[in-house]
Amino acid sequence: MNLDDLVALAKSRGLFWPAAEIYGGSAGFYDYGHVGALLKKRFENVWTSYFVDQGDNYYILDAAHILPEKPLIASGHAALFNDILIQCTKCKTYFRADVLLSELGVKVSEGATAAQIDELIEKEHVKCPKCKGAMAKTKPFNMMFDVYLGPERSEKGYLRPETAQSVYLNFFREFNILRKKLPMGLALIGKAYRNEISPRQGLYRMRELTQAELQIFFDPETWDFDLGKVSDRKLNVFFYEAKDAQRITVKEIVERHKVPKFYAYHMALIDIFYTDILKIPESKFRFFEKGGDSKAFYNKLHMDIEVDVESWGGFKEVGGLHYRTDYDLKSHSKGSNQDLSVNMNGRKFMPNVLELSFGVDRNVWMLVDLHFEKSEDRTVLKLPAYLAPFSAGVFPLQHDENIERVAQSIHKRLRTEFKVEYDDAGSIGRRYARMDEIGTPFCITVDFDTVEKSSPNHETVTVRFRDEKKQERVKISDLNQFLYGHVHHDSSKSHPSFM
Amino acid sequence: MNLDDLVALAKSRGLFWPAAEIYGGSAGFYDYGHVGALLKKRFENVWTSYFVDQGDNYYILDAAHILPEKPLIASGHAALFNDILIQCTKCKTYFRADVLLSELGVKVSEGATAAQIDELIEKEHVKCPKCKGAMAKTKPFNMMFDVYLGPERSEKGYLRPETAQSVYLNFFREFNILRKKLPMGLALIGKAYRNEISPRQGLYRMRELTQAELQIFFDPETWDFDLGKVSDRKLNVFFYEAKDAQRITVKEIVERHKVPKFYAYHMALIDIFYTDILKIPESKFRFFEKGGDSKAFYNKLHMDIEVDVESWGGFKEVGGLHYRTDYDLKSHSKGSNQDLSVNMNGRKFMPNVLELSFGVDRNVWMLVDLHFEKSEDRTVLKLPAYLAPFSAGVFPLQHDENIERVAQSIHKRLRTEFKVEYDDAGSIGRRYARMDEIGTPFCITVDFDTVEKSSPNHETVTVRFRDEKKQERVKISDLNQFLYGHVHHDSSKSHPSFM
Repeated sequence: MNLDDLVALAKSRGLFWPAAEIYGGSAGFYDYGHVGALLKKRFENVWTSYFVDQGDNYYILDAAHILPEKPLIASGHAALFNDILIQCTKCKTYFRADVLLSELGVKVSEGATAAQIDELIEKEHVKCPKCKGAMAKTKPFNMMFDVYLGPERSEKGYLRPETAQSVYLNFFREFNILRKKLPMGLALIGKAYRNEISPRQGLYRMRELTQAELQIFFDPETWDFDLGKVSDRKLNVFFYEAKDAQRITVKEIVERHKVPKFYAYHMALIDIFYTDILKIPESKFRFFEKGGDSKAFYNKLHMDIEVDVESWGGFKEVGGLHYRTDYDLKSHSKGSNQDLSVNMNGRKFMPNVLELSFGVDRNVWMLVDLHFEKSEDRTVLKLPAYLAPFSAGVFPLQHDENIERVAQSIHKRLRTEFKVEYDDAGSIGRRYARMDEIGTPFCITVDFDTVEKSSPNHETVTVRFRDEKKQERVKISDLNQFLYGHVHHDSSKSHPSFM
Repeated sequence: MNLDDLVALAKSRGLFWPAAEIYGGSAGFYDYGHVGALLKKRFENVWTSYFVDQGDNYYILDAAHILPEKPLIASGHAALFNDILIQCTKCKTYFRADVLLSELGVKVSEGATAAQIDELIEKEHVKCPKCKGAMAKTKPFNMMFDVYLGPERSEKGYLRPETAQSVYLNFFREFNILRKKLPMGLALIGKAYRNEISPRQGLYRMRELTQAELQIFFDPETWDFDLGKVSDRKLNVFFYEAKDAQRITVKEIVERHKVPKFYAYHMALIDIFYTDILKIPESKFRFFEKGGDSKAFYNKLHMDIEVDVESWGGFKEVGGLHYRTDYDLKSHSKGSNQDLSVNMNGRKFMPNVLELSFGVDRNVWMLVDLHFEKSEDRTVLKLPAYLAPFSAGVFPLQHDENIERVAQSIHKRLRTEFKVEYDDAGSIGRRYARMDEIGTPFCITVDFDTVEKSSPNHETVTVRFRDEKKQERVKISDLNQFLYGHVHHDSSKSHPSFM
């Protein structure tokens, strides 16, 4: 599926589209329709259930999106959260310099400085791709949105550029309420805001995005890890010093590449999430190590989580695993004049942070791209049943009073527990097709046999399976249990702590 | 409980506290800790399950928080979403004029104009409460936060001041995707942002708040309503023209007060939610009709949903039921040059909107205030089990290898389905107390009998009930089912469509 096809599909099926669309849209902002909002919620729920609920001493927080200026000065964002901006001197168009160079085929490292980029532009004689005009000098551009508070609008604040800061600011209070245990995991799902110079590729580069992040605070001297059964699991990893991705066991990652055990364990944890739960083929999933200039300066070890997405033209970042050391707590200790270090294990130290970070919108897009199948006779969104926006469609076979009454009562009973759609318009084939397109795994049809007392199929319905297209008769009284058995997801079954 | 007590309780128990607290906080912004975030989520879930999931053709959307300028000009917010600001000429302190007057005991109608307030201030010789200085003339103050987008920060946008606008902007696309049926309900739970002049009273007046709103689009000529069993339900209503609240049946509200049936039905729907599901005593819940200047200009009928909250000093608004007519769709038709009217029932018309609006933070605060009970021997948050942040605590009675192994395995199994807390620190009494304070309805204790093969209580645990303090032995293998039976909430049981 190419980008335009996915955008069109998303619009017509209730997934997502540009915000304020009737006013012509707003670059970098998207709204989720009734199908997309459910899919996003399902992703967030399986993410929480797997990464947070199965952890010991792991919890979810919820925090303000607007932060005062001080913490974002302390964290380095006010000075350093920049992209490099470049403008055409003739047509005045702005570009993000590194993206422009890449698109023109000029190799540029991800963390290149403004000076390095200016040099490249001169050396490679880069002109404006729109009008062939000369390019001006680059300048750093801070990506945060500022907001002014109070009756004089004199107090500067920022929309948070990442959810992580909200968690670091709450570390110390939570550590005390939770009675001073490490490791402690604090997760947050919420919005982050970035004034992207050129938002693009649908949900890939947005100005308002949803992140799902887990911050694990730990004692770097005592966080030991038994790799257990994940030790022999093979992962695809593109190491910074390598030329290609390789398939390598967790044990080898630790032994050959000097990756700490706690880090390698979490690579396996993430790999299981993508392959076992999101059902991404192993060949389309990999870790991509960042190093040198491309690594965030506060990270000691930094791997992007990448998925090969056709509509984005190849492997793209959908998340990351970041060993942020004690950079964040140290910065906020200094900025706030509060000592955030802890006293335990006989020492006073600053906890370290391992961050598991996921772009929710990017993952939603990726799920649609990878699970969408178009064949000659139909188009199907083959999402795992527990990720499907709706669990079932309920159809009366025909306009008949008895059939409709029974279908409605089934719909009413099922919807106390599941998301189900009632549909009585058009042929059964057309109704199946509508459900296939939004990934609904089961269609339940009430027919004459259902309501006919003399029929051997009295009080049963036809259940049609989305992927196999097979049909089964199921008793009405068994429907709730049938659906629960198929759509309920127990993430502990995939979790390494249960292996 | 007074305001300070509730604030202190919330901080120490993991409910909520000022955002960026280690930097001294940020007025009007709050973060939710691990207990509060769960309580907020529970409220949102029962709200969705009752108001949205039980409706025919009702769905949830999810939308961008930053909107471009145009729709908020069209909706009237850019010109009219104002508070009246007043400043002391001497100490330069700012006040919200109507709040200042009320606090000084000067009666002022909610929608009073700047000129009317200036008159009152002169007539009543109002001075600054801080320094007795003279007050300057009032001026209107727009409460929206503006945000500047793009590489030149030249495109003006706003953080949405209410979630409703996000829904109106998506009405037409959803109406078409959902195959043109009315009534259609579109709900959204999300943040709204308001630059309040003086944020106060904890979660009451915030600069960043969460709203849960349901917008029902309908044909005003055909939306008929069988009041059914709610017809005889008695509600507390303070009518605009009355001097007191009265207890009156839904039928009488329709017949005597000329309230449309669809509106009165939704009053009953809301009343059931507060009394049956949130367990608010009937005497502490009422509708308060706004009229004259105090009614929003686009509302034809406007009732606040009020709860009597001790820490706020009496009845306060926690939501509203608003008959907004076709004001919003008309405004956006004009602003966007897109005809948002529909063709059905043999006519072309603009759908009308009934809005059910709830402040999530205010409801969370109200739930804590009303369900908190302090007696001589203990403090308990008596939330209904389905609203409790954690469903159960799991305790090993003593530090004993066998007991701890079994307790941990119970905890692991329960947490695949429920939110449960493991606690092995301190006496059992202390552990009960900790669970009581955050409203956990059940405590599960593993003792020597549990692990002793010869005991008649082998493989059973003690379950202690929060409210009655009674204890029961339950088989380990029955625990999941036991908890499900007690904490699962089926909102259809309270819903009038099932009566």
